[in-house]
Amino acid sequence: MEFEIIKKSKKSRARLGILKTSHGEIETPAFVPVATQAVIKTLDTKEVLETKSQLLITNTFHLHLKPGEDLIKKSGGLHKFMNWPRPLMTDSGGFQVFSLGFGRDLGVGKVMKFLPSKNTGDTVGSHSKPKSVKIREDGVYFNSPVDGQKIFLGPQESIRIQQSLGGDIIFAFDECTPPFPSREYAMKALKRTHRWAVECLKTFSHKSLVNSHQSLFGIIQGSHFEDLRIESARFINSLGFDGFGIGGDLGEKGNMKKILNWTLPHLDENKPRHLLGIGHPEDILNIIKWGIDTFDCTIPTHYARHGSAFTSAGRLDLNKSVHLKDRDPLDPKCACPTCLNYRRNYISHLIRAKEMTGMKLLTIHNLFFFNNFVAQIREGIRKGKV
Amino acid sequence: MEFEIIKKSKKSRARLGILKTSHGEIETPAFVPVATQAVIKTLDTKEVLETKSQLLITNTFHLHLKPGEDLIKKSGGLHKFMNWPRPLMTDSGGFQVFSLGFGRDLGVGKVMKFLPSKNTGDTVGSHSKPKSVKIREDGVYFNSPVDGQKIFLGPQESIRIQQSLGGDIIFAFDECTPPFPSREYAMKALKRTHRWAVECLKTFSHKSLVNSHQSLFGIIQGSHFEDLRIESARFINSLGFDGFGIGGDLGEKGNMKKILNWTLPHLDENKPRHLLGIGHPEDILNIIKWGIDTFDCTIPTHYARHGSAFTSAGRLDLNKSVHLKDRDPLDPKCACPTCLNYRRNYISHLIRAKEMTGMKLLTIHNLFFFNNFVAQIREGIRKGKV
Repeated sequence: MEFEIIKKSKKSRARLGILKTSHGEIETPAFVPVATQAVIKTLDTKEVLETKSQLLITNTFHLHLKPGEDLIKKSGGLHKFMNWPRPLMTDSGGFQVFSLGFGRDLGVGKVMKFLPSKNTGDTVGSHSKPKSVKIREDGVYFNSPVDGQKIFLGPQESIRIQQSLGGDIIFAFDECTPPFPSREYAMKALKRTHRWAVECLKTFSHKSLVNSHQSLFGIIQGSHFEDLRIESARFINSLGFDGFGIGGDLGEKGNMKKILNWTLPHLDENKPRHLLGIGHPEDILNIIKWGIDTFDCTIPTHYARHGSAFTSAGRLDLNKSVHLKDRDPLDPKCACPTCLNYRRNYISHLIRAKEMTGMKLLTIHNLFFFNNFVAQIREGIRKGKV
Repeated sequence: MEFEIIKKSKKSRARLGILKTSHGEIETPAFVPVATQAVIKTLDTKEVLETKSQLLITNTFHLHLKPGEDLIKKSGGLHKFMNWPRPLMTDSGGFQVFSLGFGRDLGVGKVMKFLPSKNTGDTVGSHSKPKSVKIREDGVYFNSPVDGQKIFLGPQESIRIQQSLGGDIIFAFDECTPPFPSREYAMKALKRTHRWAVECLKTFSHKSLVNSHQSLFGIIQGSHFEDLRIESARFINSLGFDGFGIGGDLGEKGNMKKILNWTLPHLDENKPRHLLGIGHPEDILNIIKWGIDTFDCTIPTHYARHGSAFTSAGRLDLNKSVHLKDRDPLDPKCACPTCLNYRRNYISHLIRAKEMTGMKLLTIHNLFFFNNFVAQIREGIRKGKV
């Protein structure tokens, strides 16, 4: 992987770049759609390409459980398995284990409130929550939500799974702390994350196991504590990863800016920075201005399956009967396949009639909208306006 | 509409024809996929075209309830509403009212056993069963399963709804009797169906209401009684419909052949004959040999959503884990978009992981398989082999 920075903004910390992988180049900043189970829910890969998506992120935890990384490796790796010709990321699998674990064990609502309702194809629902999550110094023990078997996931395991999956960009195994942990707990978790980062690099560098096309990103944690974030950025930066992921609880708006400002100045600026799991439309311009190169988020796909379209005039809820009489496309300014071929009345009918085709038409539109929005920001950086 | 018979088989009663509508020509015999709620579940219309589908049938009962025919008329009719450029049929709406009504009132299981399970996008489920169905001489009274409102559906209403929907081929409103009715009830119902047929024609011919592109098919009933079927065929044939639908309980294999042999010889052979709701793969060649030109059936789409693929080597159940290791396409002899791009391992993963994309890939394949199968039969008739 190579990362070339083409232009740095003079108005902000935004950068225009090209991330070169063996499966093609990514213009950054770039939005990364989430293909949890090796699929963008409701779409096939030809349709995903039509949404101008450059790069997808799949979920190591889910794919480890179903269908298992060995099976995917034997199929020639993720790209071939899912028929996706362009670059892929895999997350470390830690987020699902920890966040759902603490959601259950600590009664924390933050992650749980995003747990999706049934019947809309969401998969991180109750059936896939790990049970009895136990965090130890060497990794995490939990019972498989699929068959109840005991599973251990640690840094070595995460890297080996990700090597079998074969994504172009893979992530170090980190401990994702619950929102607003005590300072004591955040420090303890950070020490583990740092130790695990070293182990991930060691496993990754073990030549016999390495897929030469893969790059490994380290993850910075430290919750909402300035000194811990700085310590984490400096330490992870010192280890020689190919790029960085910024993890942890960034949900509070004020926090996000602070945390990125504490963190990014301590990272090698020639390496790419990925923001994990963030990307509300109102945040996108800001995180790019604060220096983020790539970011993944389920919002466009998740909202689509619940009947919402993002448009240049705001969000539309196609569940509302008022749209049954509306013969405009979702967004008259949009050139996506959905807006070129279908109108709000029909899509509203499909959503209200619980037809999957409605979810799919909205998914195409929302992904296209997000990708197009970020392409406009890239154009803004190019022209010196962002 | 024009119907041109190009060739009559010397080996059977099969005919090769072209049905010309203002939305294009249909090569017959033709399979007609079912787009219940103005959509082939899981697909958009571009994908439906890729399955080589020539003609779709939508459901008058469902569209009357949701979103309502006035709304579709104001949107420029069904073709425009759902972005389908090719020919469309609408059924009369009677089947749903009667069959679900007698399923409930008489405790008859035959139709009910086809009532689909949840979570697969099937719509004729419990939420859309009409309540308190009352059959009177002028039509049927029932409470809307959507909002409980009293609804009346009779011959005039059915034709007016279908005129608003704007399908190319519409059907007369008939009484669909329960399986194995008494002779007394079958006669009574048939008399009603015949009276309603006359009324449908009268409403249809009322110039101010006619969409000039529409054709009206009369429906032959008479259950499993030879004399009633013959009487119905002769009577409906005498009325001057543009074509014929063969309705009623044809589910028993032996019955199907008998009923078609009693019925078809009494129909004007220059007019097209549609078999309503029948089309198991093992029946298709037979019904074409017995003289059927078009037939609609939910089997390919319904089975797809439950994980089954029809192939040249038989049926595959992608729910089975054995397919996770199978790197063949669904059918190595198939040239559909699914078989050209995806393999059994991935589709099995998607079906097992409850991903809608899996249902969609199977729907594309199954429709293509059915259409291709019927195209081969047409080729057989052309070459004098069928």
